[in-house]
Amino acid sequence: MSAPLSENAIAVLSQQGHSLMTGDSVGERYSVDFTSENAFRPSAVVRPGSTDEVSHVLKTCHELGQPVVVQGGMTGLAGGATPQAGELALSLERLTGIEELDAAAMTITAWAGTPLQVIQEAARDAGFHLPLDFGARGSCHIGGAIATNAGGNQVIRFGMTRNLVLGLEAVLADGTVISSLNKMLKNNAGYDLKQLFVGTEGTLGVITRAVLRLYPKLESTCTALCAVRSFDPAVRLLRELQGKLGGSVSAYEVMWSPYFDRVIRHSDSLRSPFDRDYPIYALVEAEGSDQETDSRRFEEVLAGALEAGLIDDAAIAQSEKDRQAFWNIRDGVAEITADLLPYASLDVSMDIAEMAEFLDQFDTELKEALPDAINLVFGHIGDNNLHLFVSTRREGDLKTIFDIGYRLTGAHGGSVSAEHGIGVLKRDYLHLSRSPEEVELMRCLKQALDPRGILNPGRVIPA
Amino acid sequence: MSAPLSENAIAVLSQQGHSLMTGDSVGERYSVDFTSENAFRPSAVVRPGSTDEVSHVLKTCHELGQPVVVQGGMTGLAGGATPQAGELALSLERLTGIEELDAAAMTITAWAGTPLQVIQEAARDAGFHLPLDFGARGSCHIGGAIATNAGGNQVIRFGMTRNLVLGLEAVLADGTVISSLNKMLKNNAGYDLKQLFVGTEGTLGVITRAVLRLYPKLESTCTALCAVRSFDPAVRLLRELQGKLGGSVSAYEVMWSPYFDRVIRHSDSLRSPFDRDYPIYALVEAEGSDQETDSRRFEEVLAGALEAGLIDDAAIAQSEKDRQAFWNIRDGVAEITADLLPYASLDVSMDIAEMAEFLDQFDTELKEALPDAINLVFGHIGDNNLHLFVSTRREGDLKTIFDIGYRLTGAHGGSVSAEHGIGVLKRDYLHLSRSPEEVELMRCLKQALDPRGILNPGRVIPA
Repeated sequence: MSAPLSENAIAVLSQQGHSLMTGDSVGERYSVDFTSENAFRPSAVVRPGSTDEVSHVLKTCHELGQPVVVQGGMTGLAGGATPQAGELALSLERLTGIEELDAAAMTITAWAGTPLQVIQEAARDAGFHLPLDFGARGSCHIGGAIATNAGGNQVIRFGMTRNLVLGLEAVLADGTVISSLNKMLKNNAGYDLKQLFVGTEGTLGVITRAVLRLYPKLESTCTALCAVRSFDPAVRLLRELQGKLGGSVSAYEVMWSPYFDRVIRHSDSLRSPFDRDYPIYALVEAEGSDQETDSRRFEEVLAGALEAGLIDDAAIAQSEKDRQAFWNIRDGVAEITADLLPYASLDVSMDIAEMAEFLDQFDTELKEALPDAINLVFGHIGDNNLHLFVSTRREGDLKTIFDIGYRLTGAHGGSVSAEHGIGVLKRDYLHLSRSPEEVELMRCLKQALDPRGILNPGRVIPA
Repeated sequence: MSAPLSENAIAVLSQQGHSLMTGDSVGERYSVDFTSENAFRPSAVVRPGSTDEVSHVLKTCHELGQPVVVQGGMTGLAGGATPQAGELALSLERLTGIEELDAAAMTITAWAGTPLQVIQEAARDAGFHLPLDFGARGSCHIGGAIATNAGGNQVIRFGMTRNLVLGLEAVLADGTVISSLNKMLKNNAGYDLKQLFVGTEGTLGVITRAVLRLYPKLESTCTALCAVRSFDPAVRLLRELQGKLGGSVSAYEVMWSPYFDRVIRHSDSLRSPFDRDYPIYALVEAEGSDQETDSRRFEEVLAGALEAGLIDDAAIAQSEKDRQAFWNIRDGVAEITADLLPYASLDVSMDIAEMAEFLDQFDTELKEALPDAINLVFGHIGDNNLHLFVSTRREGDLKTIFDIGYRLTGAHGGSVSAEHGIGVLKRDYLHLSRSPEEVELMRCLKQALDPRGILNPGRVIPA
């Protein structure tokens, strides 16, 4: 399974005409993903320029039993694309570009190596909206976003990446090309094979092309920052907004005060719109069709929530500048984390009803084990997703933090990975969220589709 | 694979304490699905009362190599649940009822044998909306709806059944219980195994329980019937409405005049709201949060469409009675088909851009082959779905009709099953929509999960 990258494989692939980078010509970008953990420079990188070439390379590797690590924009957060000894790096970076934007079908077809932002912009230019967005938009590849079933800020309304993928082309471990470039919303002609490749982190096939669903551009945006006294009203506020705003709520980001206060303190350009501190803040966004009527309705519903005691105060964005200022607080995580290195970033999900207790227990256990730990929490709670940034600035404490966090997540019936995937770094925690039967079924699929175990070996499924 | 149902299997299962119906005690309801085609009364029916019992029965059948046909509400339209010689019928009808409605999580958990309507009503009573609805709601089971990835009238906004399934419990062919009763919107902890059972028509496992996502009840409904001069403006109208109504469009049902006129003529209680005939009619529905502002906006957008020449006339429902009258025209298909027996019902999908030419070619080829054929067409075109009811009232012509329709569907890159599934009746047409590599991958999955081929053998995948 983990045979070393043989000179033989390099020789055979070169002889077949594939252009390989080897030795010093291999740049650092192929060595590690966004976590910076376990960096390892691969001894060879192949960068196919067509689906056929991906197929040919994999066929050869399958025959030789040569393990392959699949690489996109290297923005992953689970170590999945970081090479291991003996692996050939297969980068999709040359398989890039938009193939077609079909305005009538409201779809866009792109090669796996296309950065998300390029697709977002092409959609916008054509008058559409691709409801997939997260921080790494500029450097991540759409193939990687699909392979990891990426989430982001609009999941509450539009779902995960999976929901946007209408069609997919992928290459199996043995080189077979599965071309299911469907553009239709309804298609029940046999098994929906693309599901095998969405969210399986490159372990069952290499995605080469995808058809994504586009939505009409939304014409109005209403944004508010709400101050809330505790978790329970924060949940009730979410349900109130969802009930009264007709499905237009597109983001509901909850920030606990340790996170909020730290971001505000850290940045000169950010300030709280409120004249006192609150325990919880909720950033709400709704998007609709008509700014005037939508704004009026949005204000009415928030006024009702204030009256009902669900919120203690609210600031409604009166301009795009206001709106951006609110989002900058939410996105400020990128700026404060540099100061907390090394830190543990947990991306977990659980039933909303479990969250308050989970957070209490986590705080308590953390304080006991590591009294000086800083714990910053925010989350897309409508999607069940909590992000925790925990730091003592000591490398040696990271495992303790992960162990406590994931154990408690499992105990609350939650998922040790809400949106980042399992990769290598969370593999040994998978059993906390999935049963032995589930893991065995994953293994059965892996065995069926990649019998020689050459694709991203050791990722996702525990040994 | 298709060993006859042995006395041995009946004896072993009886001895194990499973209560079987055999011989004359087996009612007609286990003999055939909604198509009435190829009725075959099974020589034994087992009706497990728990997941454990399903597991135990399957384990025994797996060991004995005893083929099993999985049955729900028997409302399928592809012959999948209709027994074949030698098969034991496994009915989920005793595995019924709602286990939990979780208002905080906005989920409902139900046993596979629960009728869809029971779930819809439970959701409604709790102030929520389950956006899954189709004609068979009263008798179909939710397990069957999931196994066939059923569609319906709200797909354009909420997606197919797949999009509503958050968690699933299923039993593999060998009796292994895969319990993934997830309630979370985000969960990337390993492979999303439920996808193996959604839309695979009971060939990879038997669904026993499901967690469905609920939505807030929508407070406003705007409905209109629009008269349109041709297909192109019908498509432009759809995009105009989607663009200007902020994602609130929940139904867009297009009826061609042969269908519309026949329904109106057939029923004393239905009438066209227009004073002349048109080639195409579009039933539009949008749902939002505030009746007054939403109605005003809806009327403005339709007035704009009239002015722009996208529609020639429009009737806006002023009451629930009006609304029901419009929907009765769309749902009138159930009443006119009795008169057309036997008829061929085609449920196909394709890119919108292909539809006009497909319909023309189909009409032409049909007239050539069967000059007296009646061809009634309507569709959820926003979902790419066309339904064609074609009849010469002669049994012997059905194959000709299917052959022409599916061949042309394949030629236009379409799907021979938009929402009904493949089952047995469309199995030999699957290759028109899927490549040999895709079919081979389906076979590979089937072999991995059901190596002895006991689950719904001969369904979906061609021999």
